[in-house]
Amino acid sequence: MCELLGMSANTPTDICFSFSGLLERGGRTGPHKDGWGIVFYEGKGARAFHDSGASSQSDLAQWVKSYPIKSHTVVSHIRQANVGDVNLPNTHPFQRELWGRAFSFAHNGQIPEVKNQPLSFYLPIGDTDSEYAFCLLLSKLRKEFPSPPADANQWFQYLGEQCHALAQLGVYNMLMTDGEFLITYCSSKLCWITREAPFGEACLKDADVSIDFGQETTPNDKVTVIATAPLTDNETWHTYNTGEFRVFSQGETVFYQQF
Amino acid sequence: MCELLGMSANTPTDICFSFSGLLERGGRTGPHKDGWGIVFYEGKGARAFHDSGASSQSDLAQWVKSYPIKSHTVVSHIRQANVGDVNLPNTHPFQRELWGRAFSFAHNGQIPEVKNQPLSFYLPIGDTDSEYAFCLLLSKLRKEFPSPPADANQWFQYLGEQCHALAQLGVYNMLMTDGEFLITYCSSKLCWITREAPFGEACLKDADVSIDFGQETTPNDKVTVIATAPLTDNETWHTYNTGEFRVFSQGETVFYQQF
Repeated sequence: MCELLGMSANTPTDICFSFSGLLERGGRTGPHKDGWGIVFYEGKGARAFHDSGASSQSDLAQWVKSYPIKSHTVVSHIRQANVGDVNLPNTHPFQRELWGRAFSFAHNGQIPEVKNQPLSFYLPIGDTDSEYAFCLLLSKLRKEFPSPPADANQWFQYLGEQCHALAQLGVYNMLMTDGEFLITYCSSKLCWITREAPFGEACLKDADVSIDFGQETTPNDKVTVIATAPLTDNETWHTYNTGEFRVFSQGETVFYQQF
Repeated sequence: MCELLGMSANTPTDICFSFSGLLERGGRTGPHKDGWGIVFYEGKGARAFHDSGASSQSDLAQWVKSYPIKSHTVVSHIRQANVGDVNLPNTHPFQRELWGRAFSFAHNGQIPEVKNQPLSFYLPIGDTDSEYAFCLLLSKLRKEFPSPPADANQWFQYLGEQCHALAQLGVYNMLMTDGEFLITYCSSKLCWITREAPFGEACLKDADVSIDFGQETTPNDKVTVIATAPLTDNETWHTYNTGEFRVFSQGETVFYQQF
């Protein structure tokens, strides 16, 4: 299993605190030592960092952790390899362009049989089932909607159904984003929390670190964090149901469906 | 005008020395202060760094400069904005997948009329003429060759013709790569140098830095560096002709055409 981390915020926010917790699971408090990646969106632009080594020992990860890149939307992943070698092309998040938007994708779980389904437009660069699933999803989305429908709920609905179909092949927990929307599906393990005023203190489970968000935020900030398992031990996280599909934008849920 | 830097090597090689020289032109010895980017290939995997600030003052650029990422193929770009705002989506190199390969692209020059040509498969995320030209090139390449021809010279030939057509619209100096091949076209300003045994000392033009490649290399290493203008002042660089199209792999020219 791998670990996922996502963020959707209504104001550019850095994810240093949560990313610090995630990194510890990459080889120190967790077994996820086979690479890590993170993508930050600034408007339509995506800034991605990838490394195929353990995140807890990665010099680049330390740089990313300490440098407050402020973003509306973030997707991150640390990997424990199941399918595919440990190398850069197999390191999440994966990225492809659709509709003139940079889509990023990260997955935990295993759905090896996905490779029996034919791809059309997008092809994988590495050999993971995860990247294959991403290519399949985007190929289908592109075929169904050659241009984005005026009502975004239409493509959310369609994408939710496709995610649910993938989940029938095994374990499929997913974060996907075009920078504006953070799209999530849970087949076994995912949770989320929305932080807003009045902000309090949060303490990381995986490292001896706490933060007083009241010092870091303004009263209007709304920041949602999604993770495989709660990153803090003094806050209440919402646990996803199996088959729950949820889309966030600007820190709020904008689409929800229970399959 | 922007500045381009590329590398093709037969052994994984770091580009710290040349990148140091390029960075100085990003706001200090040159006017190229509107962002910079670099992509390193490790096998089929690409690791990209982008920043929309001046490279000479970028904390991330300093990190990249000091951290020896070893790679067979590198493309880098520092930007002086002409078309398009200064922001992340407009920062080269751009990247798209074709044939299950991550293609990266950087351009200097201006070809605003390219936007009159219709796009099919790939759409730009930002609003530069450069990214538009990249999308156009890949769209055409995909249409001509839905899968890569067994003889790579076929797609080099086709791509060269398309580059030359773009150059008729203005100034078009280009570096493009799929990680294996470094594809270059010169409309006004580009030069290259191949370093191999016996290696000597090289002195950067733009910073008080020199390096003894003899200490850093093995006798079989072959490393070609391509740049807008020579980066060193004690070596002889080859100057491209106008209309010269040249493809490198493993540090050697593998295809050449003069238009």
